[in-house]
Amino acid sequence: MDEARKIHPHRGEVLMKPLLQNRHFCHGGKVEYYRHASGACQSEMRFSIFLPEKSEYEKLPVLYWLSGLTCSEDIFMIKAGAQKWASELGMILVAPDTSARNTGIAGATESWEFGEGAGFYVDATQAPWSKNFKMYTYTTEELPNLIEENFPALPGVRSISGHSMGGHGAIVCALNNPGMYRSVSAFSPIAAPMQSEWGQKIFTHFLGPESATWRRYDSSELIREAKTMQPILVDIGTKDQFLENQLKPALLEQVARERDYPLKLNYRENYDHSYYFVSTFIESHLRYHAESLDHG
Amino acid sequence: MDEARKIHPHRGEVLMKPLLQNRHFCHGGKVEYYRHASGACQSEMRFSIFLPEKSEYEKLPVLYWLSGLTCSEDIFMIKAGAQKWASELGMILVAPDTSARNTGIAGATESWEFGEGAGFYVDATQAPWSKNFKMYTYTTEELPNLIEENFPALPGVRSISGHSMGGHGAIVCALNNPGMYRSVSAFSPIAAPMQSEWGQKIFTHFLGPESATWRRYDSSELIREAKTMQPILVDIGTKDQFLENQLKPALLEQVARERDYPLKLNYRENYDHSYYFVSTFIESHLRYHAESLDHG
Repeated sequence: MDEARKIHPHRGEVLMKPLLQNRHFCHGGKVEYYRHASGACQSEMRFSIFLPEKSEYEKLPVLYWLSGLTCSEDIFMIKAGAQKWASELGMILVAPDTSARNTGIAGATESWEFGEGAGFYVDATQAPWSKNFKMYTYTTEELPNLIEENFPALPGVRSISGHSMGGHGAIVCALNNPGMYRSVSAFSPIAAPMQSEWGQKIFTHFLGPESATWRRYDSSELIREAKTMQPILVDIGTKDQFLENQLKPALLEQVARERDYPLKLNYRENYDHSYYFVSTFIESHLRYHAESLDHG
Repeated sequence: MDEARKIHPHRGEVLMKPLLQNRHFCHGGKVEYYRHASGACQSEMRFSIFLPEKSEYEKLPVLYWLSGLTCSEDIFMIKAGAQKWASELGMILVAPDTSARNTGIAGATESWEFGEGAGFYVDATQAPWSKNFKMYTYTTEELPNLIEENFPALPGVRSISGHSMGGHGAIVCALNNPGMYRSVSAFSPIAAPMQSEWGQKIFTHFLGPESATWRRYDSSELIREAKTMQPILVDIGTKDQFLENQLKPALLEQVARERDYPLKLNYRENYDHSYYFVSTFIESHLRYHAESLDHG
């Protein structure tokens, strides 16, 4: 079968292995970029992966990283500086694109807050979005299965983190799936999306107007109803330009306090929403995840 | 005087202080972006600076970073991950843009290898380039003067490094000015530009066809004639896509060997020309510079 058909599968065709697009040596290991046919998103999807040198000799745990609005699969590998620590700690890093691309859906590329590049890690239920915008299933099922089948990843030994929309995604994926991730953390998460304009806009389009269906994708609501108490580590900058209007960590803190939920939320004086902030604290997050991932 | 006039000065107007454009907290310090009116380039110029927290209390040494073709003042601060080490070592980082911009010169923006974004750290002598393309004077005189006047920089305590075109620039600036920089290093430098297409094209446009005038901007030629023997540290990846055709480190090695010149050239197995490579070895370069900069 030719390569073009692999990545644009016809109906009924079996999904193929991810195709390597680029490889760069970095901190003793390799940053690789892949594309593959996604069953969940009925579309091509892309992701990056960092394979430490140690992965040539043994299977390693995986930290999944979910990026924010407008980002694709390369930003984290370029800007966060995580590879040094992943190499040292023996951890694979996987960063998917933030949505399907080239969907052809009217309006899908008109706003940076919604549509392509802004999948919000939910499974859309409303037409026309429901065909391609299934980032929740992609992130929690298809991607980890694909990684564990095709790379030297220890089966089931996973943690998850992310930034902004991706911080929201990381918490939502972990809280909805107790036991799936060894640990969860977030930078600058959209912590109460039902109370923010970004969240309301996306939920209305993807899930429809009935807000009862939004709850499973709202970190604060999930903490309110959580049956298990997996600790969550969050870092947010006090000069984050989206702090009050969109991220709303105070609501997350409040519900965690009410339930005595193990949320560790660090406000970092003077830091903003950028990857200058993420790169400053990524080492501490990777060390946090390594503690959970190291216990086999 | 209004801000607009400060950055677009009229003839005879005194050059003004650099204007802050953006500030991001990072690794305990600040990444700041500035623009200013450049006398050398008769144009607005831009640079970024990283000020470690320590610079709030005392003056610090400065490492100048020169970027490569197509880059501007932000790439190094975004991609190299140097701020962590600069913070730890107490070192200011300064990264200028790679040329004047918006010069309006015909052909200045048509090629990524030449013109705007590709000033090559030379002083152009040929019209129409000679008006704005004076990156050598800008880098070795105007910028350090401006930094030492406006920021907490230890006067005269400087080192220099860079990548690709900027690695060439760093070596050329240091070898032409013995005593000006405490130490010099380069990643993937264009090491013998008189023997490469990139160098020949730029030198012909900026300096004219007489190759005798090119020599002072060619690292290999400068080592051949050097009267002082300042050590040079170079790292190059063995999978660098420009290694044989444009960078030509073998010529630099050969002339250094002939003269017993203290060149330390590390070939790094499997690494390419990208900032994935730079980010891997930037810590070792900053520690190398810190050794020279620490001795007051």
